[in-house]
Amino acid sequence: MKKIIKNGTIVTATETYQADILIENGVISLLGQNLTEQGAEVVDANGCYVFPGGIDPHTHLEMPFGGTVTKDDFETGTIAAAFGGTTTIIDFCLSTKGEPLKNAIDVWHKKSKGKAVIDYGFHLMIGEVNESVLNELPLVINEEGITSFKVFMAYKNVLQADDDTLFQTLLAAKELGALVMVHAENGDVIDYLVKKALREGNTDPIYHALTRPPEIEGEATARAATLTGLANSQLYVVHVSCADAARKIAEARANGVEVWGETCPQYLVLDISYLEKPNFEGAKYVWSPPLREKWNQEELWKALKTGQLQTVGSDQCSFDFKGQKELGRGDFSKIPNGGPIIEDRFSILFSEGVKKGRISLNQFVDITSTRIAKLFGLYPRKGTIAVGVDADLVIFDPNVERTISAKTHHMAVDYSAFEGMEVTGEPVTVLSRGEFVIRDKQFVGTVGAGQFVKRANYGHSLEPKESKSVTL
Amino acid sequence: MKKIIKNGTIVTATETYQADILIENGVISLLGQNLTEQGAEVVDANGCYVFPGGIDPHTHLEMPFGGTVTKDDFETGTIAAAFGGTTTIIDFCLSTKGEPLKNAIDVWHKKSKGKAVIDYGFHLMIGEVNESVLNELPLVINEEGITSFKVFMAYKNVLQADDDTLFQTLLAAKELGALVMVHAENGDVIDYLVKKALREGNTDPIYHALTRPPEIEGEATARAATLTGLANSQLYVVHVSCADAARKIAEARANGVEVWGETCPQYLVLDISYLEKPNFEGAKYVWSPPLREKWNQEELWKALKTGQLQTVGSDQCSFDFKGQKELGRGDFSKIPNGGPIIEDRFSILFSEGVKKGRISLNQFVDITSTRIAKLFGLYPRKGTIAVGVDADLVIFDPNVERTISAKTHHMAVDYSAFEGMEVTGEPVTVLSRGEFVIRDKQFVGTVGAGQFVKRANYGHSLEPKESKSVTL
Amino acid sequence: MKKIIKNGTIVTATETYQADILIENGVISLLGQNLTEQGAEVVDANGCYVFPGGIDPHTHLEMPFGGTVTKDDFETGTIAAAFGGTTTIIDFCLSTKGEPLKNAIDVWHKKSKGKAVIDYGFHLMIGEVNESVLNELPLVINEEGITSFKVFMAYKNVLQADDDTLFQTLLAAKELGALVMVHAENGDVIDYLVKKALREGNTDPIYHALTRPPEIEGEATARAATLTGLANSQLYVVHVSCADAARKIAEARANGVEVWGETCPQYLVLDISYLEKPNFEGAKYVWSPPLREKWNQEELWKALKTGQLQTVGSDQCSFDFKGQKELGRGDFSKIPNGGPIIEDRFSILFSEGVKKGRISLNQFVDITSTRIAKLFGLYPRKGTIAVGVDADLVIFDPNVERTISAKTHHMAVDYSAFEGMEVTGEPVTVLSRGEFVIRDKQFVGTVGAGQFVKRANYGHSLEPKESKSVTL
Amino acid sequence: MKKIIKNGTIVTATETYQADILIENGVISLLGQNLTEQGAEVVDANGCYVFPGGIDPHTHLEMPFGGTVTKDDFETGTIAAAFGGTTTIIDFCLSTKGEPLKNAIDVWHKKSKGKAVIDYGFHLMIGEVNESVLNELPLVINEEGITSFKVFMAYKNVLQADDDTLFQTLLAAKELGALVMVHAENGDVIDYLVKKALREGNTDPIYHALTRPPEIEGEATARAATLTGLANSQLYVVHVSCADAARKIAEARANGVEVWGETCPQYLVLDISYLEKPNFEGAKYVWSPPLREKWNQEELWKALKTGQLQTVGSDQCSFDFKGQKELGRGDFSKIPNGGPIIEDRFSILFSEGVKKGRISLNQFVDITSTRIAKLFGLYPRKGTIAVGVDADLVIFDPNVERTISAKTHHMAVDYSAFEGMEVTGEPVTVLSRGEFVIRDKQFVGTVGAGQFVKRANYGHSLEPKESKSVTL
Repeated sequence: MKKIIKNGTIVTATETYQADILIENGVISLLGQNLTEQGAEVVDANGCYVFPGGIDPHTHLEMPFGGTVTKDDFETGTIAAAFGGTTTIIDFCLSTKGEPLKNAIDVWHKKSKGKAVIDYGFHLMIGEVNESVLNELPLVINEEGITSFKVFMAYKNVLQADDDTLFQTLLAAKELGALVMVHAENGDVIDYLVKKALREGNTDPIYHALTRPPEIEGEATARAATLTGLANSQLYVVHVSCADAARKIAEARANGVEVWGETCPQYLVLDISYLEKPNFEGAKYVWSPPLREKWNQEELWKALKTGQLQTVGSDQCSFDFKGQKELGRGDFSKIPNGGPIIEDRFSILFSEGVKKGRISLNQFVDITSTRIAKLFGLYPRKGTIAVGVDADLVIFDPNVERTISAKTHHMAVDYSAFEGMEVTGEPVTVLSRGEFVIRDKQFVGTVGAGQFVKRANYGHSLEPKESKSVTL
Repeated sequence: MKKIIKNGTIVTATETYQADILIENGVISLLGQNLTEQGAEVVDANGCYVFPGGIDPHTHLEMPFGGTVTKDDFETGTIAAAFGGTTTIIDFCLSTKGEPLKNAIDVWHKKSKGKAVIDYGFHLMIGEVNESVLNELPLVINEEGITSFKVFMAYKNVLQADDDTLFQTLLAAKELGALVMVHAENGDVIDYLVKKALREGNTDPIYHALTRPPEIEGEATARAATLTGLANSQLYVVHVSCADAARKIAEARANGVEVWGETCPQYLVLDISYLEKPNFEGAKYVWSPPLREKWNQEELWKALKTGQLQTVGSDQCSFDFKGQKELGRGDFSKIPNGGPIIEDRFSILFSEGVKKGRISLNQFVDITSTRIAKLFGLYPRKGTIAVGVDADLVIFDPNVERTISAKTHHMAVDYSAFEGMEVTGEPVTVLSRGEFVIRDKQFVGTVGAGQFVKRANYGHSLEPKESKSVTL
Repeated sequence: MKKIIKNGTIVTATETYQADILIENGVISLLGQNLTEQGAEVVDANGCYVFPGGIDPHTHLEMPFGGTVTKDDFETGTIAAAFGGTTTIIDFCLSTKGEPLKNAIDVWHKKSKGKAVIDYGFHLMIGEVNESVLNELPLVINEEGITSFKVFMAYKNVLQADDDTLFQTLLAAKELGALVMVHAENGDVIDYLVKKALREGNTDPIYHALTRPPEIEGEATARAATLTGLANSQLYVVHVSCADAARKIAEARANGVEVWGETCPQYLVLDISYLEKPNFEGAKYVWSPPLREKWNQEELWKALKTGQLQTVGSDQCSFDFKGQKELGRGDFSKIPNGGPIIEDRFSILFSEGVKKGRISLNQFVDITSTRIAKLFGLYPRKGTIAVGVDADLVIFDPNVERTISAKTHHMAVDYSAFEGMEVTGEPVTVLSRGEFVIRDKQFVGTVGAGQFVKRANYGHSLEPKESKSVTL
Repeated sequence: MKKIIKNGTIVTATETYQADILIENGVISLLGQNLTEQGAEVVDANGCYVFPGGIDPHTHLEMPFGGTVTKDDFETGTIAAAFGGTTTIIDFCLSTKGEPLKNAIDVWHKKSKGKAVIDYGFHLMIGEVNESVLNELPLVINEEGITSFKVFMAYKNVLQADDDTLFQTLLAAKELGALVMVHAENGDVIDYLVKKALREGNTDPIYHALTRPPEIEGEATARAATLTGLANSQLYVVHVSCADAARKIAEARANGVEVWGETCPQYLVLDISYLEKPNFEGAKYVWSPPLREKWNQEELWKALKTGQLQTVGSDQCSFDFKGQKELGRGDFSKIPNGGPIIEDRFSILFSEGVKKGRISLNQFVDITSTRIAKLFGLYPRKGTIAVGVDADLVIFDPNVERTISAKTHHMAVDYSAFEGMEVTGEPVTVLSRGEFVIRDKQFVGTVGAGQFVKRANYGHSLEPKESKSVTL
């Protein structure tokens, strides 16, 4: 059924203007003022912004980690994402050394199929590079539509890859047209500091942060950038947490290396002092990289504003406090890393960013959607509001005030990282390919309606799936 | 009369997509695929890009300089601009110390009124700041709609202002909502070096470049940026010619100072060796700042690509070789500074930039139009393709090949700075507020149809002039 | 009469060792262990360091400033200097535009002749460069032995020179073999800010600091360095007060420009909060550049340690609080700039620097003597302990503790900038060319015994004055 | 027997002056002009400089490498060193993982005992850190007098240590008072590039350089510096070959990290083009890091001049061309790395450095001797000319001209890296602890007279061995 979004203010990565939107067959077919169309359902967006649906480039749904599994799966996770204004996610698919990459992908398809309420894609972890992996990569890219790979420089003896692996991944990505993502921390140094802390009886959550100092995030970031330059390849640094790493990215790009950076809502508004909360509550705030000294926040906002960092992902990786985070009582190294963020990305960015003048409204769209779509081969099918693209849309009320709380959020976990934070602005209605997922703040979507998206090669466009004839 | 631009590929600062454009009452009223409208004139843009009309933020038409006057006036200059894909210019209005600013503005209105074939605005030169100037500035901004001021750090004893003047202009601009532009070269050092060169009998055109080394452009740029930071104001550095100055701008912005940078086509493709052409032909290539060592070109392209510089202006300031440039025979300091560029901005940027992969297609639009509109208070009325904005449009054939030559250009001067350069891509049809100015490469516009545009304050939007009701 | 300094620990810019020193005819003739010499007077330095006499490169004795004259003249000033371990000063000779430089030098010879108790030289201020000045400079250097020139970038309409003057001075210095010194602050901006503050009724001493922000010291420093590089000349930045300026110097030198930097004791241990002392006492702490935020202190110490800054001068420029500093009551711009420091340089540097591990003992000697001698053409006659050099020596007790106070100091002024500060280490005995000036903390010198030293060209050695035959 | 060095010009790291030197019991007992002493042997140094004996901090004598052994042992190597003005070397003692460090030290004592003609010390390689190593380190430092440790970041699967090992070594060094040295290249990347080159049939010597690009030297240098800062420790980067690495060292030190850098004569005067010499002669120029593009040379000289790098070591590691270098015919990775340099360090530094104005005479002494003595715990016993220190002296004729050649050098290998280079300046006479080793360019020393020197902890002084009573 056709729909018309009327009276809204359309916001894209560059424009802000008044116009109505006609949706046909899941795509935007017409943009104009005072649109009328017989038989179309009218959705009033008066007083609201109409944003392109958010794209979350960094989620970990139903992922095993440290002997447990993240609480949100593709159902609860994508429902929460939709409440948070997100209409596409790219989830991390973990691979296992020695096994075919295809196996890992199959596992991830099984986790997601029939569950997701919005569209999704996968990144693939690369833990080793050998002949078998090199043979499989072209298929992963061209058949599976997975065009981004993640390499871990931390988690020694678990996920950590050596520089040889990173370098070969960069070379392969260049050749095949993919984007390499890194978790940039020096795992060797962390491993030593963690052991030392535990040996000395320092077991509280705060030691998680103290054993992962910002210097070694900066170091690993610079190292990855150097290898990228040498390989003439492309790099995306996930979850940049501190000024040092952001600066290293900016320097590399100024020197002509194609390096992009992502930060996360938690690094923009939380700080290291949260890890010292009593009664082991600090465990709720255990991320890797860890929360930093508060002064880094303003530097990260500035990096977003001046284009030194490009995107904000959630790094959604949720665990209950009870029973999961608690695994680390008496040993901070056993606290599952990560937190529930997927639902709060728009709220934090808009309320703390746009409303406080740290980023512009257009930057908000670029950071949460357009740039991500372009970097990860989803654009223009996803990531903007224009004639012919998927009608993934968010009607956003910029004036509503509310308080973030685990009591009201839709993630499956028992706490909120932003409990009690007052924010302004909220998604009211969310459409995925023209269908309502959230309507007037209620979930009205269909479990399993989300589709896996095969993404375009790095630097290429993802054209609309089928040429839908649209007529006036 | 309504018009439909059909079958073109619309390009904005972020998007590239297929859609038709309906134009009513001079504005864009509808964007959609397969648009039809009774009574509308159809313009076929098949195989072409449809760009927002170019905005040239830096022109000197009919401007007195060094005892002569620039050759192109608002008629020949704007016709040539239109041929070059430009639909709005912002011309520099020279003021005189001791006289009311209003006088200078009146002079400029007289020069332009009834002549321009496209829309235009003015920047105003500030040569001194005193009580009278401070009293007049609010009127200039709010009544005259002139929201950008230029201060010269060079041309000692002629145009050069001291740091006190620059600083006070920055403070006033901050308070009143204007953008300060600087010509950033250390005029004191230049003045000494010029006198020394002449004293030593070094009178050829090449000494124009040798007496204006890049270091003192970098120095003045850094100085202006420091003063801007101190004033918490905003700065736009015109005609950045070298890597040193570009880097200084990038550093300042990384430190949180709001500094923007413009370069020009000549700095991107010509170099210092042109000043050594025999038979005094080097005089054709005399700009201030001068052409630089060739390696700077790639650095400037990189600065555009990575967002260290934001815009490309023409610095159109044309003189005939015969009779004008020749005034400097035997004394390079008497060569009128500047050249004819207004017509070639799109061609150079597209052919050398987009076609050669140095900038993307969307960056081309941002650099030549959108960003300029935003910085100078023309947006969204000008500078993009969206519902409700002025139908200033360029239909651009990206495949046509041609050779730039004074024989075929439309500027009033007897030489071309790019004589013999082969370029790909050319504007075919150009519309200003929905009316044809160029059609199928022929001038079909109306002398005097161009309107003066009162611009919005810095950081503010310029809404469409009148709310034109547009109906389907 | 011969003298032997016995049992001391000799410290030079690189060495620390036990040896005795034989002095004959005012020079060091022998260095060895267990020296004995018939007829020699033995001075026991047991438990003490023996340092080369300090050289203070920055003093203003009996200098007119702001309608008054600095309190200490060449008699009181040099006696206080000697108490403070200094055996040579280089005083600033102020010149007047339009008058022969020779006149200024003559005035300064008159002020000093017959008064100084230690040796001294002059720097010469250059306020303008014209044919007459250029003609006189070779004589100043070669006849007068004045091989360093100072240019002011601040004090608009009084001492401030424009960039043309600075640039020409740098060129002349390069050609003739002299060192250019700058007071690096942007005088234009200061002038505006001062007028604005006064206009707004902000007349207290603290506004002296607030109208001279560190950014414009950094700016002027970078500008002077750029001009130095362009002139391929050499520069010495006096009284660096903040991290920004120190960093600019380091960057320039890393880029191959010969720029040296001096800081002063006051910037190392006092901070901007002193200007807020009640009862107008803040006026005691008015220097230009002003005292800075406290965090700059550690950066300046680090700059000394890592060789980014080379020297510490006193910038002695003393005024009584009563009657002199008080001239600025009700108008901070009328407070005479400067303070009494000449006596405290060694104490501050040793106690706060060496004792607290911020600089090494050898760096102390380099910073207070050797490097200064080398930069200003006094070396090796002055500035070190070696065979054949002037016996300008300081026997320094590193363990004595005392409290700095105006009650006990020897400067002619009624307050101390460091009143109440507890320091460790004090000069016990001081010799100038082998003669006692201070002995066991008592002044035993001769007024007028100090000699004017004609200094060598920049980069050249100043050989001992006459070849004194020294025999065993 | 007492000796007097007469009429020479003594040069130290800061001073240059005329004086005679009296030597008693192997130490300098007196410095003075016109010294006479009954029974002393007089050595005329007229027209010559008298330098402190050179200290070579980087030699590999009789070291196994790649299936062969370096050609020069402690006899030929130290004789050649003495001819080259060096009176102390610090040789690298290779340890083996899993074996006690003491074993390695014993092996090195066996190699050297009874062979060396000058004094020597050892650095110790650390390939792993575990409980056994940590237990042994205090003994190595305090009993064995080995206070510097080397960690390799390259030579994967052979010498390369991981970051954990480097970090722990830095922590231990800080705690125990030692200096950590790194070979800074990213071995992982090299390993991949080497395999790739060989796989593609690129086997010539030039591929040695092409598979070790400067970026990965810069990267490893920055990484080591970051780890040093984190450990609050101290680092010495050996054989810095390129501008990138030198800059990284300077940046770290400017940020307060204690990082020192050494370069080598080969990097200062040879370049990558040497590896392309025909007939496999390129193999003679195979070092790791490799020779670089020629422009780096001037940057390295500038780094020495401005104090960004501190020392020059030889990295003596000599192999015959015949039979040794030739092992790599058909496979550049099998060419033994290194060359014969120990004899040429003074000549290259003096002739190309001092004579050409790139460094001063005093810097020459600092770079080749004093700074090395201070960094490695040999000072003041070694490294300067002062009363009480070892009489390790070089009488150096600055005017003699000669041509470097394998025909005349004293190293045991069949080629010279500098064959045919014309140099000015040569050591004429060399004394070790007061005894002649070289006299009038002839070897007159005693095999086995060189003593092993137990060095002081990092940052501490090495006092003269025994208090020798010296009387006049």
